[in-house]
Amino acid sequence: MDRENSDPRMASAFQKHQFTILLTLFQIVFMILFGLFGKYDTATMPEGSEDSLPMAVKYPLFQDTHVMIFIGFGFLMTFLKRYGFSAISINMLLACFTIEWGMIVRGMLGHEFAHEGKFTIGLEQAKRLLSPMSLTVACHRRKISKYGIEYRIASPSVEKFHISVKLLTSDFAAAVVLISMGAMLGKLSPVQYLIMALIETPVAIFIEHTVVHTFHVNDVGGSIVVHAFGAYFGLACSKAFGDKSQREHENEGSIYHSDIYAMIGAIFLWVFWPSFNAGVAEPADARQRAVCNTFLSLVACTITTFIVSQATDHHKKFDMVHIANSTLAGGVAIGTTANVVLNPLHAMCVGVVAGALSVIGYKYITPVLNNKVGAHDTCGVHNLHGMPGVLAGLVSVVFVLIYEPASYGKSLTVIYPAWNSASSQAVNQLIGVGLVLVSSLISGMVTGFILKLKLFNQVREKELYADGDYFETPADYDFNTRIVSRIDRVEINEHTQLTQKEI
Amino acid sequence: MDRENSDPRMASAFQKHQFTILLTLFQIVFMILFGLFGKYDTATMPEGSEDSLPMAVKYPLFQDTHVMIFIGFGFLMTFLKRYGFSAISINMLLACFTIEWGMIVRGMLGHEFAHEGKFTIGLEQAKRLLSPMSLTVACHRRKISKYGIEYRIASPSVEKFHISVKLLTSDFAAAVVLISMGAMLGKLSPVQYLIMALIETPVAIFIEHTVVHTFHVNDVGGSIVVHAFGAYFGLACSKAFGDKSQREHENEGSIYHSDIYAMIGAIFLWVFWPSFNAGVAEPADARQRAVCNTFLSLVACTITTFIVSQATDHHKKFDMVHIANSTLAGGVAIGTTANVVLNPLHAMCVGVVAGALSVIGYKYITPVLNNKVGAHDTCGVHNLHGMPGVLAGLVSVVFVLIYEPASYGKSLTVIYPAWNSASSQAVNQLIGVGLVLVSSLISGMVTGFILKLKLFNQVREKELYADGDYFETPADYDFNTRIVSRIDRVEINEHTQLTQKEI
Amino acid sequence: MDRENSDPRMASAFQKHQFTILLTLFQIVFMILFGLFGKYDTATMPEGSEDSLPMAVKYPLFQDTHVMIFIGFGFLMTFLKRYGFSAISINMLLACFTIEWGMIVRGMLGHEFAHEGKFTIGLEQAKRLLSPMSLTVACHRRKISKYGIEYRIASPSVEKFHISVKLLTSDFAAAVVLISMGAMLGKLSPVQYLIMALIETPVAIFIEHTVVHTFHVNDVGGSIVVHAFGAYFGLACSKAFGDKSQREHENEGSIYHSDIYAMIGAIFLWVFWPSFNAGVAEPADARQRAVCNTFLSLVACTITTFIVSQATDHHKKFDMVHIANSTLAGGVAIGTTANVVLNPLHAMCVGVVAGALSVIGYKYITPVLNNKVGAHDTCGVHNLHGMPGVLAGLVSVVFVLIYEPASYGKSLTVIYPAWNSASSQAVNQLIGVGLVLVSSLISGMVTGFILKLKLFNQVREKELYADGDYFETPADYDFNTRIVSRIDRVEINEHTQLTQKEI
Repeated sequence: MDRENSDPRMASAFQKHQFTILLTLFQIVFMILFGLFGKYDTATMPEGSEDSLPMAVKYPLFQDTHVMIFIGFGFLMTFLKRYGFSAISINMLLACFTIEWGMIVRGMLGHEFAHEGKFTIGLEQAKRLLSPMSLTVACHRRKISKYGIEYRIASPSVEKFHISVKLLTSDFAAAVVLISMGAMLGKLSPVQYLIMALIETPVAIFIEHTVVHTFHVNDVGGSIVVHAFGAYFGLACSKAFGDKSQREHENEGSIYHSDIYAMIGAIFLWVFWPSFNAGVAEPADARQRAVCNTFLSLVACTITTFIVSQATDHHKKFDMVHIANSTLAGGVAIGTTANVVLNPLHAMCVGVVAGALSVIGYKYITPVLNNKVGAHDTCGVHNLHGMPGVLAGLVSVVFVLIYEPASYGKSLTVIYPAWNSASSQAVNQLIGVGLVLVSSLISGMVTGFILKLKLFNQVREKELYADGDYFETPADYDFNTRIVSRIDRVEINEHTQLTQKEI
Repeated sequence: MDRENSDPRMASAFQKHQFTILLTLFQIVFMILFGLFGKYDTATMPEGSEDSLPMAVKYPLFQDTHVMIFIGFGFLMTFLKRYGFSAISINMLLACFTIEWGMIVRGMLGHEFAHEGKFTIGLEQAKRLLSPMSLTVACHRRKISKYGIEYRIASPSVEKFHISVKLLTSDFAAAVVLISMGAMLGKLSPVQYLIMALIETPVAIFIEHTVVHTFHVNDVGGSIVVHAFGAYFGLACSKAFGDKSQREHENEGSIYHSDIYAMIGAIFLWVFWPSFNAGVAEPADARQRAVCNTFLSLVACTITTFIVSQATDHHKKFDMVHIANSTLAGGVAIGTTANVVLNPLHAMCVGVVAGALSVIGYKYITPVLNNKVGAHDTCGVHNLHGMPGVLAGLVSVVFVLIYEPASYGKSLTVIYPAWNSASSQAVNQLIGVGLVLVSSLISGMVTGFILKLKLFNQVREKELYADGDYFETPADYDFNTRIVSRIDRVEINEHTQLTQKEI
Repeated sequence: MDRENSDPRMASAFQKHQFTILLTLFQIVFMILFGLFGKYDTATMPEGSEDSLPMAVKYPLFQDTHVMIFIGFGFLMTFLKRYGFSAISINMLLACFTIEWGMIVRGMLGHEFAHEGKFTIGLEQAKRLLSPMSLTVACHRRKISKYGIEYRIASPSVEKFHISVKLLTSDFAAAVVLISMGAMLGKLSPVQYLIMALIETPVAIFIEHTVVHTFHVNDVGGSIVVHAFGAYFGLACSKAFGDKSQREHENEGSIYHSDIYAMIGAIFLWVFWPSFNAGVAEPADARQRAVCNTFLSLVACTITTFIVSQATDHHKKFDMVHIANSTLAGGVAIGTTANVVLNPLHAMCVGVVAGALSVIGYKYITPVLNNKVGAHDTCGVHNLHGMPGVLAGLVSVVFVLIYEPASYGKSLTVIYPAWNSASSQAVNQLIGVGLVLVSSLISGMVTGFILKLKLFNQVREKELYADGDYFETPADYDFNTRIVSRIDRVEINEHTQLTQKEI
């Protein structure tokens, strides 16, 4: 932590302890709110429930997503040579912070809270009544009752007990913040990251709520409300927060091993992305489509990434930044419509466009954003989450218009709960994209200004993109993350010396 | 392997080949026992079984746990700079050894073996009759029979065919040994690790059997019988085995990359811990609670870890040891009662206490154990598994007393199979903790003395916490794990030179 | 890319851009074929389908396999010190390329394509009618119909709608190519890898189709048609392609950290192998057996690997090559019969033989293949996939002959669809092995000659087993992957110097 000597004593003590003080305060407030309003799902998951199927279906999807949030995002951000400890640790901290905070916000926005002043936390509905999905479960129950177990009749009044805060959606809330973190990576102190998450989470969830519940936008994989929101929030925040010193900093680069670490994250994201997009898809046929479309989009996107990465390179070499990031753009771009696309080729086309767009973004757009616009983007989230997220939204408009609604049969009203006509749904999808762009840019920019306040610990220029000020580092830290890169330049010289010594 | 020249030739040959000889011998004996007594589950998994649900429910939980054992524990222990090969490899070897040995021991303690002289190995019961969980399955079967498939009537005599050795519980047995391995990490030769596992496994399983089946203790996530047992066994073993040379050894430390490796293990443990605690939870509602409580406890624990890690540090920096280990204490501390806790806030409180306790343990208790008590603890398992495991036991007493038993409805008798009164169950839970502490300390100490016998290969002092004596290492081994740390200290000097050369 | 100055301008431009041109061309052709013939499964996954069970059962198995393909194979091949970027990236590229190409080939070989000119892509059949497995599902549907949902009657005409291309089997197709890639690792340019995959995929799938559908061979885990085929194709390709310069190249070796990366891949393969072998096993009892047998075989194989690795080493040390590879041979060797083995001991015996065979292969057979036969095998796929694959085939003959067919009850005709007699099935299994060996060796050799054509970019001798020509590498690349190994040899010298400087 930087200690500014000119500060009065009190302020200095706050500077020194502000992370401890603020995070303790937040955690206490969160726990009070959980204590007052949070509860488990005793009504919809009755004592001695036999129904194992909902968990069997949803738990693996949740766990895959959980791996994406903590391993995927975490390791993807370890590519910076001197920022590995921070990337993986702060990722974990922010995810946990946002999970708690997001549960509270989402809970308070729910029907249940409005009616009963409580919100229910759970994995998945054990009983899904009055929806097309509930019948299998209901008839299960029925038969059990023949064998002597009490049978609870399905009634409209039970509807309100639907779980309002699922573990899975709390992981989605974390994803928003972690994407913004990608744009700000290396430029914030731990306390600033917390403040960013504190502000961003309620805005993102409120906007998501509006987009999904007011405008009835279909955004099954969250490409609009999670990916685009997180990316543009981060970019706007970076624009408002940034200054010149953050650009072309010598610490901003990778070493050979850190690029390989990043691939651990990248591939786990890649492999489990179908689960992310299918996690909340209903009913079963839409869920399977979500898996297949995401799979095909990613595959086509990956091939395109290799093509464009080499084609646009001066030396005709691949760039690991593209391999680790742009290959994932296909997952984002198909996210909004993963449950909707009815033709394998369409999913592949989306992937191809996303891959090309993302590599081109890294190559030509990010430098412009950085140098001209002043929106420095450490991880290039604009290319992985931002543009592909907007693409996802536009693609959703296209698919609403070109597919015959009858093709979805009874699923139609689950996928588009307020279906009226193709054109009205298309307009709604567009409104969703617009709303997310405007709100994320504004809220991100405001957040950036707030983060600049001297009140909060700021990262010293020398220690930008570096662990040294915030983590205890082992003795080899400087050698392996700084000196080594310089030795490389005197390779032959050194080699000669060594060989001589050997002789 | 160290070769002591004074030994007579025969003994020296045994020293040299003892790993080969002993492990071959063990493997042959294990296979004979499997051949004599092990069988698959042909009775409860009848030919052409249609029932896919049990595997759908339990297989993902098993696989998550499997990842924890081999990736989680394995990589968590790679933090030592010169012991990466050993950590990951010996972890694998010991886990496999204990899985085989544990299956035999558990099988021989089961009802089935007592009645029929055989034990059944399997993934999960396909038919779970005569228990509250079995009815869904039974009614499934019934309907199938209408379509012409023979229907096996449920009868008490079928009960005994319940699978006595599940793959999942054999992974739990491995966890016990791997925890003890954490305390002894870097101090044992491969053959000593095997001897430790050979002794510990039957003791641990016998004690678990007593605690769970005689005292009917609820310990769904094994925090008492797995975590506390493994940790205190390891500590006692270390106390009896240790000498001064093992403390403050120059090899006992991390490098930048090894700390990041360790995070691979840490995060996979973190992410999949809900599956560990829910793996054997029954029925479905208790299983869901186990997932949710573990999730919330871990989240709260992680935030607390960051707070306390920074607050207790002189330079107000985070310590990767805490991030990689203490964040997991919440999973241990909620383990015993994950199926029991009925309020989200309670789970979070357990996590908060566990995180704080664990960091304080690393900071203040481990040094005392090491210097005063003489129980050196390489991985700090006392802070991650020991104290949180005991905490889990004490917490289980509290929850038995404060929750209304009626809240569990029909699940009550599955969770507490010998429920009589809250106070009697509370006493039983306490007895469980006491029994585990006493038995693990005694058996661990005995094992420590046995491991000291000159009969077994001992690690040379110079090669403590190092791979060199046991693994073929590449040419960069010494540079990257030893020399590099010294170069760091002359950074500026070297840099200057290099820059001059460049000019 | 090497630029051969003597080439005329046109050819040189093609050399420079050939990867871009060819991969773009392939991707366009693939997409056209997908557009013409590929479709989703609207008939068997009807609108508003309620049936979540098939996905609950199969999706986790698929995802585990998906992790194996991208994380498992990818990281296992990062063991080369200077080839980490290529290993993980080209693995990803080839897997995606083969998934697309394999889907097309498999689709075109299917019944559906023959009858209707289309192939269906999907995760898993939602409706599996007219097979023993379909009844549970059918009766589910029946009951739903009582609640008002239309009930589609099962009729023979529906059979043809079975999904012909599953995501899971497209991952299997990728595995074949990635195994061959292991033999050729570091010796091919990106475009050559593509050409290899282009040729190998249709041959492998056609042979698989013949073995499984014409000769009705049971090969549930694909040990014959995936592992043996991939390995012997790769070896033959290497024999035809190789020259002396590829052998004993200074780049062909590991560093300390790259050996640990490789373990990430190895352990994920190890942990999820039961899912690989059980992925297509039917019905439920056979699937559970596949899991248990693979689990036990791997455990026994791992212990054997440690024994033999140390026993055959001059210095009685373990070799990480064996730990990372031979421990997996048990998964291959049990693959063909994982659904068949009825006795735990038998599975363990298979594992023991496989582990010993694999280590002996690395120790004594690979050097002979390399030096005498001229078939250089970078990853030693002959020891991990080749010999254990053939072993799996031979073992399947034994188990056909020794087990009572009645033991399988109704499952018999699912496991062996053309069961006639034990001896006829045994002959078929043998024919399968023979066919795979002959076809893989011939097609591999032909491919090797094609890859030698000057038409395709060749790797420069200096850049064999190195990333430099194909990937942008960070500044520390040379130091950490080449110089560092030499510094090691002057350790004491350097250390002394440094210490002096400090003083």
